[in-house]
Amino acid sequence: MRDIEGLALLKAIGTRRPAVHCLTNTVVQALTANMLLAVGAIPSMSSDLAEVADFTNGANALLINLGTLDGERKSAIEAAIAAAQAVAIPWILDPVLIDRSPPRRAYARELLALKPALIRGNSGEIAALDRDTARLAETQGAIVAVTGAIDHITDGHAERTVDAGHELMSRVTGIGCAGTAMLAAALSVSASADRLDAVATGLALFGEAGEEAARKSGGPGTFATLLLDSLYQFSQYSLQERKDNE
Amino acid sequence: MRDIEGLALLKAIGTRRPAVHCLTNTVVQALTANMLLAVGAIPSMSSDLAEVADFTNGANALLINLGTLDGERKSAIEAAIAAAQAVAIPWILDPVLIDRSPPRRAYARELLALKPALIRGNSGEIAALDRDTARLAETQGAIVAVTGAIDHITDGHAERTVDAGHELMSRVTGIGCAGTAMLAAALSVSASADRLDAVATGLALFGEAGEEAARKSGGPGTFATLLLDSLYQFSQYSLQERKDNE
Amino acid sequence: MRDIEGLALLKAIGTRRPAVHCLTNTVVQALTANMLLAVGAIPSMSSDLAEVADFTNGANALLINLGTLDGERKSAIEAAIAAAQAVAIPWILDPVLIDRSPPRRAYARELLALKPALIRGNSGEIAALDRDTARLAETQGAIVAVTGAIDHITDGHAERTVDAGHELMSRVTGIGCAGTAMLAAALSVSASADRLDAVATGLALFGEAGEEAARKSGGPGTFATLLLDSLYQFSQYSLQERKDNE
Repeated sequence: MRDIEGLALLKAIGTRRPAVHCLTNTVVQALTANMLLAVGAIPSMSSDLAEVADFTNGANALLINLGTLDGERKSAIEAAIAAAQAVAIPWILDPVLIDRSPPRRAYARELLALKPALIRGNSGEIAALDRDTARLAETQGAIVAVTGAIDHITDGHAERTVDAGHELMSRVTGIGCAGTAMLAAALSVSASADRLDAVATGLALFGEAGEEAARKSGGPGTFATLLLDSLYQFSQYSLQERKDNE
Repeated sequence: MRDIEGLALLKAIGTRRPAVHCLTNTVVQALTANMLLAVGAIPSMSSDLAEVADFTNGANALLINLGTLDGERKSAIEAAIAAAQAVAIPWILDPVLIDRSPPRRAYARELLALKPALIRGNSGEIAALDRDTARLAETQGAIVAVTGAIDHITDGHAERTVDAGHELMSRVTGIGCAGTAMLAAALSVSASADRLDAVATGLALFGEAGEEAARKSGGPGTFATLLLDSLYQFSQYSLQERKDNE
Repeated sequence: MRDIEGLALLKAIGTRRPAVHCLTNTVVQALTANMLLAVGAIPSMSSDLAEVADFTNGANALLINLGTLDGERKSAIEAAIAAAQAVAIPWILDPVLIDRSPPRRAYARELLALKPALIRGNSGEIAALDRDTARLAETQGAIVAVTGAIDHITDGHAERTVDAGHELMSRVTGIGCAGTAMLAAALSVSASADRLDAVATGLALFGEAGEEAARKSGGPGTFATLLLDSLYQFSQYSLQERKDNE
């Protein structure tokens, strides 16, 4: 990890330790929480309607992942977004698999009206919202990140591309979802005007951690654990640098 | 992994990349998804009543695991099985711990009427359905796999036994459940007439991957990650073979 | 692991293999089950109202973790505690994050009336119940364990402190929750009069396993797997000792 912007971002997260409340699907909750902890952010995950506003009020960013929508989850999502807007923290939309489920796609489109700061998905998921990514970003006033072998990030005016990562990242469930949580932490420590760069920087260091982990791993099982190690090591290195420079 | 049938099965899964929809308990969702991904299958896990039929329609096999039955789960299970029958894909029943819960056992027995292609459990779970395994298989027109130190698989007429695996497999939660998901992928790429052999082959390669992982691990934590690595390596080897032979 | 009390505790768990029913949050279910399995205990996790009493009746201890309270979870918690009281097994309260959610704190206080054998939390969580830990223990007739860099355990009269563990334990989600499950297993094999020491011994060996894992790991990802390996190795060593001494 030699990228200056990446180290500065990790230093900001590791120093300020933002709380990220995550309404995410049960499949990926543990990996998501562990990725946030690896870089020094503080996860919380409650989706109980009675307390989701309290957790969001105390957080620095809110992640909404549409991976599992059963029971009272939709009411909890709406209460959490309302709380995020009330305390003016960014909320991030991860429209998981909306291209495979019409009711989920319809729900994702409803949520767009509530002004997410970032929408992150693969090409199929984002296309299910709007085939024109730049138009989607501009209309929504949001950053849109289309992740894949190469990531494309736009705010509707400027664009960044990130060419990093490893094929094994597609062989571990929830890697993308957990990465979105790390982008939520990144946005929470960045000025509004710097969000496009914060997302690109976050995706670049995520991909670089994946490449580092892949070099040491024998397959997707050890890869997932080594990816967390790499992110932690990058984070610790950024904090050490901080001390040296003071 | 030198078994010809095992390599052929992994090659079929890795080439056709079947989608497996899993209604499984929250404890084992991540491991189940990761095991499917390791061999090249595509997992989905939504249990939302509004979309479970859409996911099942687009899948090549359906896994029903009775590990956690709270809330609307039963309605979702029934909607998913109806969708599986409508598109004629195999559905697999994993009657987890029905020997410890009378209401769960009663529910498992109800589900038998919906004609699973495979029932996989340990000896206590299968005995809670019928003490005579061959009769259970013949009555239901299903493959029945009783897994343990030695696995017994029957279609009511013929039987296969598999002697593979390692004691550490009983020290990781959800290994059996995740293995059943891999069998669902195996059935989805096999002809109906070959299901008995497909299940036996799947259990043999699962056990062999466990033995390989146990040789390298120091306990159940690293074992679980190395098991995923072994399955991935076997799968990659089977696909490499394919290229060599073309 | 050279501590005599720790080895005796692990030997008792590994020989008697207690069943621990866990009503815990979905984020930490897998790690909790895997930690119990690593030391030879038998986890179950169902929160279905129709069957939670059956599982608790057949268990040797009950863990109640307040991490996710959505849906019917509260009814399931109350049914499980009633079942635990009926068969006179200890139940353990882990009041996760009650200091961040007023409704959750109110609910935790209600549950105190149902006489937990052990309350385990960090300093903020325990203070949300009572700022005076010894008074809390004495009033409730419970062991109270306040865990952190140094753990303080009291029954209201005597106190134990444990200085073990590693900073990486705070970088993996659910390590504390899973540790509480191990304490539930410890209480289930200990006489009522020995509970204070059983909790202190359990926390000491948990911390020692963490130190051992940290020596071998490169970060929180591999650390979590190595912690399970260490606990398993300690357990196997305690059982081997048993054979030598017979």
